[in-house]
Amino acid sequence: MSLGSVQPTTAGAGCSYSSETVVNIVIDLLRCNPCLRALVGMSEPSTLDIFRHSSEAIAGEYDGPETELKETSSHELEGANSDAEVSAVAVEGSAERMTYKSPRLPTPPSSTNKMCPHANGDVPANGTSEMVGIELKPNGVNGTNGVSHTPKLQPQRNPYAPRASDFLNNVSNFKIIESTLREGEQFANAFFDTKTKIAIAKALDSFGVEYLELTSPAASEQSRRDCEAICKLGLKAKILTHIRCHMDDARIAVETGVDGVDVVIGTSSFLREFSHGKDMTYITKTAIEVINFVKSKGIEVRFSTEDSFRSDLVDLLSIYQTVDKIGVNRVGIADTVGCANPRQVYELIRTLRGVVGCDIEVHLHNDTGMAIANAYTALEAGATHIDTSVLGIGERVGITPLGGLVACLYAANPEYVKSKYNLPALRELENLVAEAVEVNVPFMNPITGYCAFTHKAGIHAKAILNNPSTYEILKPEDFGLTRYVSIGHRLTGWNAVKSRVEQLGLKLTDDEIKDATAKIKELADVRTQSMDDVDSLLRVYHSGIQSGELAVGQKEALDRLLKEHRETQTRELAVAA
Amino acid sequence: MSLGSVQPTTAGAGCSYSSETVVNIVIDLLRCNPCLRALVGMSEPSTLDIFRHSSEAIAGEYDGPETELKETSSHELEGANSDAEVSAVAVEGSAERMTYKSPRLPTPPSSTNKMCPHANGDVPANGTSEMVGIELKPNGVNGTNGVSHTPKLQPQRNPYAPRASDFLNNVSNFKIIESTLREGEQFANAFFDTKTKIAIAKALDSFGVEYLELTSPAASEQSRRDCEAICKLGLKAKILTHIRCHMDDARIAVETGVDGVDVVIGTSSFLREFSHGKDMTYITKTAIEVINFVKSKGIEVRFSTEDSFRSDLVDLLSIYQTVDKIGVNRVGIADTVGCANPRQVYELIRTLRGVVGCDIEVHLHNDTGMAIANAYTALEAGATHIDTSVLGIGERVGITPLGGLVACLYAANPEYVKSKYNLPALRELENLVAEAVEVNVPFMNPITGYCAFTHKAGIHAKAILNNPSTYEILKPEDFGLTRYVSIGHRLTGWNAVKSRVEQLGLKLTDDEIKDATAKIKELADVRTQSMDDVDSLLRVYHSGIQSGELAVGQKEALDRLLKEHRETQTRELAVAA
Repeated sequence: MSLGSVQPTTAGAGCSYSSETVVNIVIDLLRCNPCLRALVGMSEPSTLDIFRHSSEAIAGEYDGPETELKETSSHELEGANSDAEVSAVAVEGSAERMTYKSPRLPTPPSSTNKMCPHANGDVPANGTSEMVGIELKPNGVNGTNGVSHTPKLQPQRNPYAPRASDFLNNVSNFKIIESTLREGEQFANAFFDTKTKIAIAKALDSFGVEYLELTSPAASEQSRRDCEAICKLGLKAKILTHIRCHMDDARIAVETGVDGVDVVIGTSSFLREFSHGKDMTYITKTAIEVINFVKSKGIEVRFSTEDSFRSDLVDLLSIYQTVDKIGVNRVGIADTVGCANPRQVYELIRTLRGVVGCDIEVHLHNDTGMAIANAYTALEAGATHIDTSVLGIGERVGITPLGGLVACLYAANPEYVKSKYNLPALRELENLVAEAVEVNVPFMNPITGYCAFTHKAGIHAKAILNNPSTYEILKPEDFGLTRYVSIGHRLTGWNAVKSRVEQLGLKLTDDEIKDATAKIKELADVRTQSMDDVDSLLRVYHSGIQSGELAVGQKEALDRLLKEHRETQTRELAVAA
Repeated sequence: MSLGSVQPTTAGAGCSYSSETVVNIVIDLLRCNPCLRALVGMSEPSTLDIFRHSSEAIAGEYDGPETELKETSSHELEGANSDAEVSAVAVEGSAERMTYKSPRLPTPPSSTNKMCPHANGDVPANGTSEMVGIELKPNGVNGTNGVSHTPKLQPQRNPYAPRASDFLNNVSNFKIIESTLREGEQFANAFFDTKTKIAIAKALDSFGVEYLELTSPAASEQSRRDCEAICKLGLKAKILTHIRCHMDDARIAVETGVDGVDVVIGTSSFLREFSHGKDMTYITKTAIEVINFVKSKGIEVRFSTEDSFRSDLVDLLSIYQTVDKIGVNRVGIADTVGCANPRQVYELIRTLRGVVGCDIEVHLHNDTGMAIANAYTALEAGATHIDTSVLGIGERVGITPLGGLVACLYAANPEYVKSKYNLPALRELENLVAEAVEVNVPFMNPITGYCAFTHKAGIHAKAILNNPSTYEILKPEDFGLTRYVSIGHRLTGWNAVKSRVEQLGLKLTDDEIKDATAKIKELADVRTQSMDDVDSLLRVYHSGIQSGELAVGQKEALDRLLKEHRETQTRELAVAA
């Protein structure tokens, strides 16, 4: 808890509580709040008993020199330091199966930097998103603290958006590892020949993903040749290949010309028992051997467990800490079976963030439809790299889809995402892959789904016509797409119809438009009206008003005019034929 | 914080810190941790300054009679009471725009029940899920505390699963409000005639959803007639209709025979400016009028804001508190634009849970693909009702899909979900709706997607054949579906092939199977092999071994035998033709 970071304002005055009591209060707070435990990297409340038993000793430390406490910087008071220190202690306790060794707290100030030492983590999340950002106020209510605010320019901010205090948040600071050519090849329908692989690799590269992950060259002869061919394309994206944690595979991988190797092994008891049958000692030994070998070739190496969310937490943290110490570039957390939910992901990544200094990659399957949200939450907790595939293709229902991930990250910070990726290329990229694996782009796909920007209900259409931000968190034009307002149905409203009347250059009063809308609803109760149908009705209504043959509320007159119009059309068609 | 619920163990001994300091420690903890603030229902750290300024007064209260503190029950020490009290205070502060009135803390014990007084919230989450549950250990490490554990029976539990301490968690205690016939009708492709509406209503009812929500009878004549017809079907599900917050609509709605009315109005500045143009005073006045009117008819009423995540938090809490006081059955939170992410949802629902006593419904759009996860997280935070539609159809890319929600809730607690819903009926229900709106069930749909239970990579196939739980969090048989292991591709492995050899009743050694697998990979590098192709190859290999024409590693011999086999087949086909 780094109690030392709390600055006593008037220490000594009115002393009614002992240091031991103070420690107990903190312990009780931690025991009651799993979320707080997650924040300080503590997985089980039982760890707390160690603190309680040692509370007198801790309190002794806590009674340390007051001047030192006062030197604590204001940054540290904001939580960074305190979290880092407890997390380190908690982890030490876990790894050694609760055999607490030393009550010496707090740790030296140098450990302040240990919390988030990787390149990505030190930059706070950019909270200035256009639609869901938050205006960061100073603590004083309505104070300006020397900064001049112009709230009029951005009148509405979202109080639930990421906070600057989420100092681990990488939502505006991440890299994508695109695995369509590895995980995607495990999709039931996928068979990529060399030409297709190269086309997909080039399309992904021009979209702007930072990494491409390819099938292991050990899988087959052609897989090895394709891997070599893609390495020779000279793409901007770094090329990785994905191998089992085995020296045979590693030796083949490093010869292909890749920029890095992603190593994986199953650590859950399910996989240890029913898959490879190895114990943690063997896994650790092999991991060290493979990582050192890949590093010796001067290329990147990532070590990931498989089925991380059903692996023993102590085993996981222990092996990640080991590989971090020998200099692995990234560790990977994989929800191989798709069982994780967002708060679990947050808790595990947050815990891991306190244990390793290297980058953290996440690979999340989508069996329960939560892979996009889990990826987003992983970034909030300090992950740095997200695995995706185009349309999410992969084993079973696949993994985090590239388009969906881009959608939620764009919603958080449109400018950052627009600056990183060629968003209008997304649709063609998805079409390319959909064609290669013979699937349709799902109708409910974020961004590119059929009618992702179609507005139907009258209440929506009215507001969208006034200001698209009312019902759109994504701007279609940023993705090279257009919005469509549907009005020929029974849920339509007169405001939407009015907009169409104006587009057609017709002059009708509001009462007349309401009257025409009632007729559209009546017709649409029988069958949906096309835009042509709606336009005809509006023109007929307009000419009736102009000629004096029609007035508001004259239902029979309108029906007669519409009938005449239909008959004229039929005659014209007959003549033309 | 209800500091009173923390039991001082040896109060008075070694008093090195004042009560004021204690309060400051707690304040600093709250300031540093947004997640902890969320847990205690505090949205902005600035609220904390009120506590700090009043810390002496609070500390005075804290110094209350020790005997009373010791009477606090162990349940209260687990966090329920302390959270409830702070939350009430924080909200009072927010609603009155930080004009803190009284430093008198803690509140009387009677408020203990206020935290979660609705019917659903008092039952803790069932943590006994089959695949991702957690074994709840007593605090003592490896202690049994009188309970005999049989860890051998369930060797692997997930440390990241919901905890019993998540006392607000409704993941195993929720109701579904199925809105295919309301939100779904707003999908661009949807036009439901009466017959289709009735078919969908009956199918949803036999699946087991608790509520059906129908389009407003004010939308059109046919909408009104259809609403009346569905009310007369005598379904088990309660029938709701969804109206604008307006007396005209309410008068029509209550005459249709529905069991309840869902009232909605936009409260975000976007909607207040560009949609209805009303201010909060008008909204509140109308809401009270409509709610009292619906209640006077003896039916359920829900009040929801629209675009809740871009509405002013104080406005939101204020209107929800008001409608709760006049006895609304449910309040609704709507992410109308699909901008929310899981931790935002958790924070808002958790805050609201501390403000209202009634049920909480959530309606979540899927524009960034997070609607399933957001719904799950809302239940974790204490929501009681989730809106869904079949396949998620609705405005734009729609809302939380019924199937996806069922998938993630099944993963959390299979037995509860199986007992509530007729899971094998899901596929037909989805097909019915997909046909009605002329879309395909997306290939990556949870549960029913093409190949949701197809396993391809060799490493996966091997483990699945040993134990399906290795790579499956959902059991296909619970949904009336079957798994499929794909082996005719270059990512195949010899263990998967071995399983097929055994199914075919062939006798081959492991070395022979590895040899045959190498040939399958070689052929699959050119084109994917069908199961027939694989079977033929295995039979030819087997007969070659039996006859002595073939041995491990004799590539040419195998190629010759396969060629002969193809020629024989071609001749037979020619003779048959």
